[in-house]
Amino acid sequence: MRFTSEQRLDDGVLEREFTLGEIPGILWTPGSASTSGSTSGSASTSAPARLILLGHPGGLREMYPRLAARARYRAAEGFAAATIELPGSGDRPRSAAAEQARADLRRALETGEPVEEIVDRLVLPLVERAVPEWRATLDALLSLPGIGGPVGYAGGVIAIGIRLAVLEPRIAAAVMFAGTFVPRAVFEEARQVAIPLQVLLQWDDEGNNRQQALDLFDAFGSKEKTLHANLGGHAGVPRFEEDDANRFFARHLK
Amino acid sequence: MRFTSEQRLDDGVLEREFTLGEIPGILWTPGSASTSGSTSGSASTSAPARLILLGHPGGLREMYPRLAARARYRAAEGFAAATIELPGSGDRPRSAAAEQARADLRRALETGEPVEEIVDRLVLPLVERAVPEWRATLDALLSLPGIGGPVGYAGGVIAIGIRLAVLEPRIAAAVMFAGTFVPRAVFEEARQVAIPLQVLLQWDDEGNNRQQALDLFDAFGSKEKTLHANLGGHAGVPRFEEDDANRFFARHLK
Repeated sequence: MRFTSEQRLDDGVLEREFTLGEIPGILWTPGSASTSGSTSGSASTSAPARLILLGHPGGLREMYPRLAARARYRAAEGFAAATIELPGSGDRPRSAAAEQARADLRRALETGEPVEEIVDRLVLPLVERAVPEWRATLDALLSLPGIGGPVGYAGGVIAIGIRLAVLEPRIAAAVMFAGTFVPRAVFEEARQVAIPLQVLLQWDDEGNNRQQALDLFDAFGSKEKTLHANLGGHAGVPRFEEDDANRFFARHLK
Repeated sequence: MRFTSEQRLDDGVLEREFTLGEIPGILWTPGSASTSGSTSGSASTSAPARLILLGHPGGLREMYPRLAARARYRAAEGFAAATIELPGSGDRPRSAAAEQARADLRRALETGEPVEEIVDRLVLPLVERAVPEWRATLDALLSLPGIGGPVGYAGGVIAIGIRLAVLEPRIAAAVMFAGTFVPRAVFEEARQVAIPLQVLLQWDDEGNNRQQALDLFDAFGSKEKTLHANLGGHAGVPRFEEDDANRFFARHLK
């Protein structure tokens, strides 16, 4: 992991861009966190900042304002937050198969044809590639001074969040956005999820399938799972949900 | 309004039983609230405690432990809370028509017959009788020293909460339990509700109709409405929802 830039934001949050191999990412740490890694004898008195992974649908540059805002919310509660670019998105090499699936999906949505098979082609290989990258990122981030687990996952792509929640024992709680285009296989995987969950559903999301989101919430195997449905479209998650997410993570990560 | 008993609970909350005409009720005020009604010259410096009406399905004696627990949660956030017995419940005179409807409903549920007409007979007259009583109680409570509006409504019966939310301008926000046996007419009325809402749904409530609850949430006319669905049965609302309700009311009543 190599840091490529560093800036202190006005609320004291330290924002650092990094690369892990060919994967670009961003790490935000709260102003209060010790990031010096001092080994000069006296042990640091402050506990490491718990880490929250910020999921997103790809395109770090376009997503930056929303991701940074979410990271700063988490930092206000003392959490570190990090995100990486998805394979095939942003400046990363395109996958011909994924580009084909994306084009097929657009066409199928226009003509009203069934999309299930296309969604499988688009999402399942993305999960296969993205999850090991997230886990490698987790290894690197947790080896930094001042950052510790247990770790939270927040955001989309929900299929990636689900796979991580099932495979990665360091992830102890997740806030997931009930998204669109969820392969049937992911519903089966959701039954294996056992960590506490908060699932966000935008009730009037034009691009979303409300019934599918409710079915997915139903499928999760977690003993503690809460659905928060709010009025409004895709980008209209109300401000108070950020506070709720902080409290949810504080309950389960601290 | 006549106070019939008074006790100070261990967390400092003042619990007072009262009667308003023939209606019994309970008022809880936080330890911090001024209830002396001092007019001795110096104005009280503390703001009046905002009042939250605690709805319930009737039977004050059986419901007391849960209502008192909810009231003490509210009091911890500085809210006053009050409840009254429903017409035809507890020690109040029975309604022959309501008793008949209740018996018919039990029988219909056993035999699997349709219940819509019975639910109308049971719930609609209850709403007609209960809502004016709640409003009279509100008049009396808001004339007490140390208690003020805007007012919140929390709990069931959801048909009563909906009518109150539509008719009563002093009620500014409500946390409603998505209940069972909601007459179709109430769905129409829900469209007229305009105050901020938090709707609680127990995902596995044996006695509940999940789809009906989701439809009712969809019907509400409020611009700010949030559904909180949690795993578990009827009485299993998680503790953290009490905190969420306090924050919701703090946002909208203070």
